[in-house]
Amino acid sequence: MERTVTMSLTDALNELVTANRILAREGVVDAFGHVSIRHPEAAQRYWVSRARAPDCIELDDLMEFALDGTPIDPAGRNPYAERHIHGAVYEDRPEVHAVVHNHSPSLIPYSITGVPLRPVMHMCASMGTHVPVWDSRSAFGDTNLLVTSMSMGRDLARALGTRPVALMRGHGCVVAGPSLRNVVFNSIYLELNAHLQMQASSLGEVTFLSDGEIAAILQTRSSFTYERAWEYWCRRAGRAYDHRPMGGPLSQAT
Amino acid sequence: MERTVTMSLTDALNELVTANRILAREGVVDAFGHVSIRHPEAAQRYWVSRARAPDCIELDDLMEFALDGTPIDPAGRNPYAERHIHGAVYEDRPEVHAVVHNHSPSLIPYSITGVPLRPVMHMCASMGTHVPVWDSRSAFGDTNLLVTSMSMGRDLARALGTRPVALMRGHGCVVAGPSLRNVVFNSIYLELNAHLQMQASSLGEVTFLSDGEIAAILQTRSSFTYERAWEYWCRRAGRAYDHRPMGGPLSQAT
Amino acid sequence: MERTVTMSLTDALNELVTANRILAREGVVDAFGHVSIRHPEAAQRYWVSRARAPDCIELDDLMEFALDGTPIDPAGRNPYAERHIHGAVYEDRPEVHAVVHNHSPSLIPYSITGVPLRPVMHMCASMGTHVPVWDSRSAFGDTNLLVTSMSMGRDLARALGTRPVALMRGHGCVVAGPSLRNVVFNSIYLELNAHLQMQASSLGEVTFLSDGEIAAILQTRSSFTYERAWEYWCRRAGRAYDHRPMGGPLSQAT
Amino acid sequence: MERTVTMSLTDALNELVTANRILAREGVVDAFGHVSIRHPEAAQRYWVSRARAPDCIELDDLMEFALDGTPIDPAGRNPYAERHIHGAVYEDRPEVHAVVHNHSPSLIPYSITGVPLRPVMHMCASMGTHVPVWDSRSAFGDTNLLVTSMSMGRDLARALGTRPVALMRGHGCVVAGPSLRNVVFNSIYLELNAHLQMQASSLGEVTFLSDGEIAAILQTRSSFTYERAWEYWCRRAGRAYDHRPMGGPLSQAT
Repeated sequence: MERTVTMSLTDALNELVTANRILAREGVVDAFGHVSIRHPEAAQRYWVSRARAPDCIELDDLMEFALDGTPIDPAGRNPYAERHIHGAVYEDRPEVHAVVHNHSPSLIPYSITGVPLRPVMHMCASMGTHVPVWDSRSAFGDTNLLVTSMSMGRDLARALGTRPVALMRGHGCVVAGPSLRNVVFNSIYLELNAHLQMQASSLGEVTFLSDGEIAAILQTRSSFTYERAWEYWCRRAGRAYDHRPMGGPLSQAT
Repeated sequence: MERTVTMSLTDALNELVTANRILAREGVVDAFGHVSIRHPEAAQRYWVSRARAPDCIELDDLMEFALDGTPIDPAGRNPYAERHIHGAVYEDRPEVHAVVHNHSPSLIPYSITGVPLRPVMHMCASMGTHVPVWDSRSAFGDTNLLVTSMSMGRDLARALGTRPVALMRGHGCVVAGPSLRNVVFNSIYLELNAHLQMQASSLGEVTFLSDGEIAAILQTRSSFTYERAWEYWCRRAGRAYDHRPMGGPLSQAT
Repeated sequence: MERTVTMSLTDALNELVTANRILAREGVVDAFGHVSIRHPEAAQRYWVSRARAPDCIELDDLMEFALDGTPIDPAGRNPYAERHIHGAVYEDRPEVHAVVHNHSPSLIPYSITGVPLRPVMHMCASMGTHVPVWDSRSAFGDTNLLVTSMSMGRDLARALGTRPVALMRGHGCVVAGPSLRNVVFNSIYLELNAHLQMQASSLGEVTFLSDGEIAAILQTRSSFTYERAWEYWCRRAGRAYDHRPMGGPLSQAT
Repeated sequence: MERTVTMSLTDALNELVTANRILAREGVVDAFGHVSIRHPEAAQRYWVSRARAPDCIELDDLMEFALDGTPIDPAGRNPYAERHIHGAVYEDRPEVHAVVHNHSPSLIPYSITGVPLRPVMHMCASMGTHVPVWDSRSAFGDTNLLVTSMSMGRDLARALGTRPVALMRGHGCVVAGPSLRNVVFNSIYLELNAHLQMQASSLGEVTFLSDGEIAAILQTRSSFTYERAWEYWCRRAGRAYDHRPMGGPLSQAT
């Protein structure tokens, strides 16, 4: 039996603060980028911080939004102009419970060269077999590249489709997944894969993971793998780790 | 309505100390490099530290200069030999209120290879569509490369023209802008762009931001974007962030 | 006379905690990867942590295993699924007293391109003249790449043979040696060599250490070299260094 | 008038401890590498630490040696086996008062590819117009590469000649200069130059500093430049900076 996530809303929001701090500590976000969760008790709403750098975020910064981006209780706080990335994905993907948008540095070269990002090692298989690149210019022409409307958000969500990751040309990426720990894990290992794939490409022809290997990794990865990494990242980010007992048989761990 | 900067001189000088510390913390300067502001109440003067490493600078290190580099009240302090970079830009550009000179590492390769530095992502668009390279050798022959006279400073300012950034061959760059937060922001994202452009170039042919996108980014970037980054950089540099209320409608944020 | 290691089991386990922390501090492991020692008094057993990130490991996390991976006193703790890497090497190599498994980033490109990893500098000679690459796909087809059975562990141990290091395709490496300090030292300098070899390859044709040089280095490297590095890494990892007197003539040091 | 160094021996040895810590903090040495000074009052002797990692060194670790490497008062301490690098240079070069031996990572690729290291920016001009590469194999065949005798040290010193820097194939470098601050400065900027030259080479054809520029930089660089950097590095290394008044006219500073 895997861990059942039955957190209270407060617990969930504390974890969202932790996720922000982890993404900053691990170099996936700088002053920009954001991470959200679907409201655990109201599927038509999501939570994300007010417009603030992830490393600075406190519990009181978290805001609730309708899927179309309308703040429920703004209380004078400034929302992210790009929150529509999150709303559009939640609208389209009922199974998605967490979304990251970031400018993870090593991803940018893949977004602007046509070279596909593909998994080179087992830890990074979560991106799947194909990572699409969404270009805001295709449908919207010359803009400031920001996803500032539901119309743009939905166009991006269409490019993402049912996949976990889409790159955004000259901008960054969106990562969607079933849990907060999943999207943080995937974001951190995307950066690593992008870095290693560049290095390997400079040495010679690269052997990528096979589709069968990617499928095997995704089928056998347990929540326990995310827990091990989460504890480590909490320690590095100076955040308390929530030690809840994990029941059942030994989980698959690397 | 955007935030109106109506700081006292003391506030402005404290921000200048913070700017020095941020540039050091973010790796844009090491023991060398400097940042100045035009005197907020006397357009023919500017403030910059005595000759000291940016990470060590305190309020008492800041010195006032006439645009030709004459110290107003030296009090036994040693000025930067290259302060003329600042004076020459302020002399030529009334709209400029802050200048950075740095040796930001990833910029150097562009200054010595003829490969143009160009924006690869939206955060880095502030450099504009063309970044010129000034070579001290063209007008001054074999020197120690330092801009130690108004004559050299003015030659550099001519190469800069009305642009925000010029590279200096085998040396570094100068960044000029309307505010301290603008030039610090631009300096940090120049380093990132230079790094990413090198990586992308090693992968394949690069799609840069279009001129229309660069224009759209510059037109829609609000002071709020600079505030978000500034708070984050203050936190990393161990400096207090000056939380002044920002009025008006929601600013454009990424 | 070189230092004779006559540690108590408790001392040895404390050193194993330190080894985990060092590998994390030096960037050789992140949340994943593990290091083990053969039981100093029972050659058919080994010690390795429960499934936890190396940087978080405490003395109580260490578990004892039979060589086939059966925990001696699990006490409800979750073992690493990949502990069979360690058991299979100890089973095959009586002279081996410590094993590291890691995903050291710069090694990955060599595991997926066919470019051989070879020593470029004296500190990194411990890898020997040939570093084999084990591919789980050769004998086991499409898997999640994890070494989760003794059958896989033994296949990897065969590829390793009598060598100190084998790479694992798309995964990482295994490092085996006569002592804990040896395998930690070798792991850290493998990462450095991999990084430098990539850089050198991008500059031009590389002169590697000769076989005679590698042999000379391995023959003259004394325990004193490991001590000097260990003290330094303890300091960086915030762990106490065990200053035991080293007797005899001056050891060879670099 | 430039600062006259009239330090007591104790002051000089405290500065030597600081130099060790700085080189470690700036990534020029890891657990290995060493820095020495000629005895300020006895030209036929020099001081260097006992065999210990630079970041761990305390005042009591410093040992005095005759130029042939004989310890004056060993007191049971283990000397560096490679101290002969220092002795041989002091023997050959009366004007040299400080020597660094390090394995600075970015230098290694130049030592094993035949690509010459050359100054790409003004801060790094101290290496001069030609950096020779000494190969221990030329005169001594297959060894462990360590300079463990005066015979090897003198061979290296001959390759160095009157220059400030020589690379050592597959090993590192030696840096010699008139003062401790000079060799530390030169070591740190060698690493930077090596890194930037590799990046620039990957972009296109590189414009190096001209011989005239290198000469101009070396002629105009004042002790004040070293002071500015030293204060900064002391701060980063957690060491007190010795603020002695600097008299005279404004020094040339960058």
